[in-house]
Amino acid sequence: MTNVVIVYFSGYGHTEVQANAVAEGIRSVEGSEARMLKLSDNGELDEAGWAALDSADAIVYGSPTYMGGPAWQFKKFADASSKPWSTQNWKDKIAGGFTTSATVNGDKFSTIMYFFTLSQQHGQIWCGVGLMASNAKADGPEKLNWTGGYSGLLAIAPSDSAPDEFPAGGDLDTARAYGKRLAEVARRWRG
Amino acid sequence: MTNVVIVYFSGYGHTEVQANAVAEGIRSVEGSEARMLKLSDNGELDEAGWAALDSADAIVYGSPTYMGGPAWQFKKFADASSKPWSTQNWKDKIAGGFTTSATVNGDKFSTIMYFFTLSQQHGQIWCGVGLMASNAKADGPEKLNWTGGYSGLLAIAPSDSAPDEFPAGGDLDTARAYGKRLAEVARRWRG
Amino acid sequence: MTNVVIVYFSGYGHTEVQANAVAEGIRSVEGSEARMLKLSDNGELDEAGWAALDSADAIVYGSPTYMGGPAWQFKKFADASSKPWSTQNWKDKIAGGFTTSATVNGDKFSTIMYFFTLSQQHGQIWCGVGLMASNAKADGPEKLNWTGGYSGLLAIAPSDSAPDEFPAGGDLDTARAYGKRLAEVARRWRG
Amino acid sequence: MTNVVIVYFSGYGHTEVQANAVAEGIRSVEGSEARMLKLSDNGELDEAGWAALDSADAIVYGSPTYMGGPAWQFKKFADASSKPWSTQNWKDKIAGGFTTSATVNGDKFSTIMYFFTLSQQHGQIWCGVGLMASNAKADGPEKLNWTGGYSGLLAIAPSDSAPDEFPAGGDLDTARAYGKRLAEVARRWRG
Repeated sequence: MTNVVIVYFSGYGHTEVQANAVAEGIRSVEGSEARMLKLSDNGELDEAGWAALDSADAIVYGSPTYMGGPAWQFKKFADASSKPWSTQNWKDKIAGGFTTSATVNGDKFSTIMYFFTLSQQHGQIWCGVGLMASNAKADGPEKLNWTGGYSGLLAIAPSDSAPDEFPAGGDLDTARAYGKRLAEVARRWRG
Repeated sequence: MTNVVIVYFSGYGHTEVQANAVAEGIRSVEGSEARMLKLSDNGELDEAGWAALDSADAIVYGSPTYMGGPAWQFKKFADASSKPWSTQNWKDKIAGGFTTSATVNGDKFSTIMYFFTLSQQHGQIWCGVGLMASNAKADGPEKLNWTGGYSGLLAIAPSDSAPDEFPAGGDLDTARAYGKRLAEVARRWRG
Repeated sequence: MTNVVIVYFSGYGHTEVQANAVAEGIRSVEGSEARMLKLSDNGELDEAGWAALDSADAIVYGSPTYMGGPAWQFKKFADASSKPWSTQNWKDKIAGGFTTSATVNGDKFSTIMYFFTLSQQHGQIWCGVGLMASNAKADGPEKLNWTGGYSGLLAIAPSDSAPDEFPAGGDLDTARAYGKRLAEVARRWRG
Repeated sequence: MTNVVIVYFSGYGHTEVQANAVAEGIRSVEGSEARMLKLSDNGELDEAGWAALDSADAIVYGSPTYMGGPAWQFKKFADASSKPWSTQNWKDKIAGGFTTSATVNGDKFSTIMYFFTLSQQHGQIWCGVGLMASNAKADGPEKLNWTGGYSGLLAIAPSDSAPDEFPAGGDLDTARAYGKRLAEVARRWRG
């Protein structure tokens, strides 16, 4: 089995919806399993979680974008990952990342760049979205990759939306497509 | 007079529309003038252009986002600015930046970050958009800063749009608001 | 009085040494005072701290670079700053930033870019180091800006060094020069 | 054979020395070949070059850092790559990158981030340096990854140095190690 672990924080539930869609995409690939590790409100992970990361083929990072970067709870996890980093335990695992914020752009790229930077300290191999964007006049948020991330997965959840409303449409389809891609890349890389 | 210079490249005309709206905003401030320097298709600027930059109170950088960064013509200008850089001629001038691309996100943040990085090599003082984003469910592209840039000004121009169609609505209002802010900040800074 | 507030986290003491040198530079400017706010080990700040930020002319952000970004304690503070952000209380305050890490490069630029991104969400005006780098063959770590930051202040503190050993030499001189620049820029901006 | 193509610009020769060391590392891996494509002074590549990129297993990007980003000649190449981009011809090729500048830090990270952003528009899989940094007090520039890049390869070439002097020592050893890693990763990925 190819073993993809999603480690994420979600403050109001929107990023959890995105994480679930990525997991669906992973599970749609034969021979792939998705394990979800949700960080606590204090940015913590139990020992079983850390062990799951150690044995993963791929690790996918997820967080809302708060104040121009990942939530502090995610950063606390990232700082705690200095332990596997010091022994380069995650070296050569596939990496990817996703983020949600209320604003159309809203510095989401900054959060993705942080996930990438973290993955490279760990010696991981980064796999981005791998999809062209939908950007013609007739396109709208129901289209694949209309929100338009390349380096990582982006979704929009308006400030007054509930998690059962947003992310929606194309953002969730794109999340499933990215999950599928991550599982296929991890399977091929595993050999 | 507060003297704000916009130096920009425009490939298909969309970024020029954005530049014009920024200039309108600058000119709406009493005692402020906007000078526009459009880079040639080969990324060049004449001597009068370089002289205008040397005597500017503020320099605003503009380019479409192509392949995840500013157009090469803009980068050629940036590399040629190593001459005023070597004598720190632009030190303490106010700086700002704007970019247009077809995709909603589409790595526009990367172009803004480059403009900022360039400005800091020159020792400039950076002034971002200074506007909250419109990000409620009922908001759309007609609203101020719906596209949602903070560090610099962003606009969307779909891949099949003409420059008289896009950027449009809120993106142009935001451009005018940013021009006004840049002129006011430059005036206050000038003292 | 021009009122510059340094809000920072320090894990092992090296970033505190850097913060102190920035403060010295600020205090060297007539009519300027530096107030230092050290975040707790849990990333917290008391009410007097938040009030000091509200009344500051300039806010300088500082943190070690851990795992490719600011320490989680700093990010917790940044996330908590969504309260003054929601009312744009820090708008038009001068901003700057500094970071320390063990490695010569070691993703310090990523931390500075985060400080900048945060400042732009707050509508602040960014002031970088404003110094050319010392980069000739004969130059070494005793020279001004040899470590070579433009957008923000950088310092090196080797992994086995004590805070009374590193940051040292040119890094501390550069920190003092940056503090002086921040105070002068804040004074001029204040008018 | 695993086919790794290095496409780079070099202004004064220092980046070419770095490129050659990466190529040496690639060639040290059994079954791997390195092809070097040097961009012209006008940022151009001939048809054979573009064809070599189309058939590569891995593409490694290289440029000096000028004014906080890749040289304009490299950006001109990147913009011209919108042709293979439009058909996603480079999708799933391994990607990597390297840069040289005079200053110890000097915004090299910005250039690497651009290479990464470009690669993700192309749907490539990014492979960073994969080495811990040498960052103890006793370490110096003769050590492996003392300059300290994770996301991409960094080297220092002082402003008054000749290409036969710098990059030197540890920077060249690190370049060879990165070339070896890129070839091994490309071989494993090819399957």
